[in-house]
Amino acid sequence: MQAKIYIKLKHGLLDVQGKTVKGGLDSLGFGNVHEVRVGKYIEIDLDHTDAAAAKADVEKMCEKLLSNPVIEDYRIDIEATATQS
Amino acid sequence: MQAKIYIKLKHGLLDVQGKTVKGGLDSLGFGNVHEVRVGKYIEIDLDHTDAAAAKADVEKMCEKLLSNPVIEDYRIDIEATATQS
Repeated sequence: MQAKIYIKLKHGLLDVQGKTVKGGLDSLGFGNVHEVRVGKYIEIDLDHTDAAAAKADVEKMCEKLLSNPVIEDYRIDIEATATQS
Repeated sequence: MQAKIYIKLKHGLLDVQGKTVKGGLDSLGFGNVHEVRVGKYIEIDLDHTDAAAAKADVEKMCEKLLSNPVIEDYRIDIEATATQS
């Protein structure tokens, strides 16, 4: 199984990194950009054979280590991988 | 339009951050983890009304600012947003 995790700041919080990237895009001439938000994208290869158990474990990983639940939201996609035994 | 951009290190390159996260997960008792890769997830709100033009522009943004094309791969998803005028 492979877990894909998307982590971004909660809605309403100031995304300083995103503002900086937007400024960079503006100065490069990309004037069509409204807003930029920058987050993390994490791929984890897991031994699990059961998708529900994998998702439960990855949720624990997000709460304990991968995200800061106070200020960040995360989304988890679990996919079967071709190489999974 | 909203662009979602997923950036990760090219295959075969050592992902030091991923290795560090894997070590952290191991020490927290998550023994089922094979490999962790850490990348970036960027959301951009765009004024474009044409998805193909939006994707072309976002590809330029990735090449010029958002990613390091020497060591990173990126994937772009373009989605219509409900708030699009």
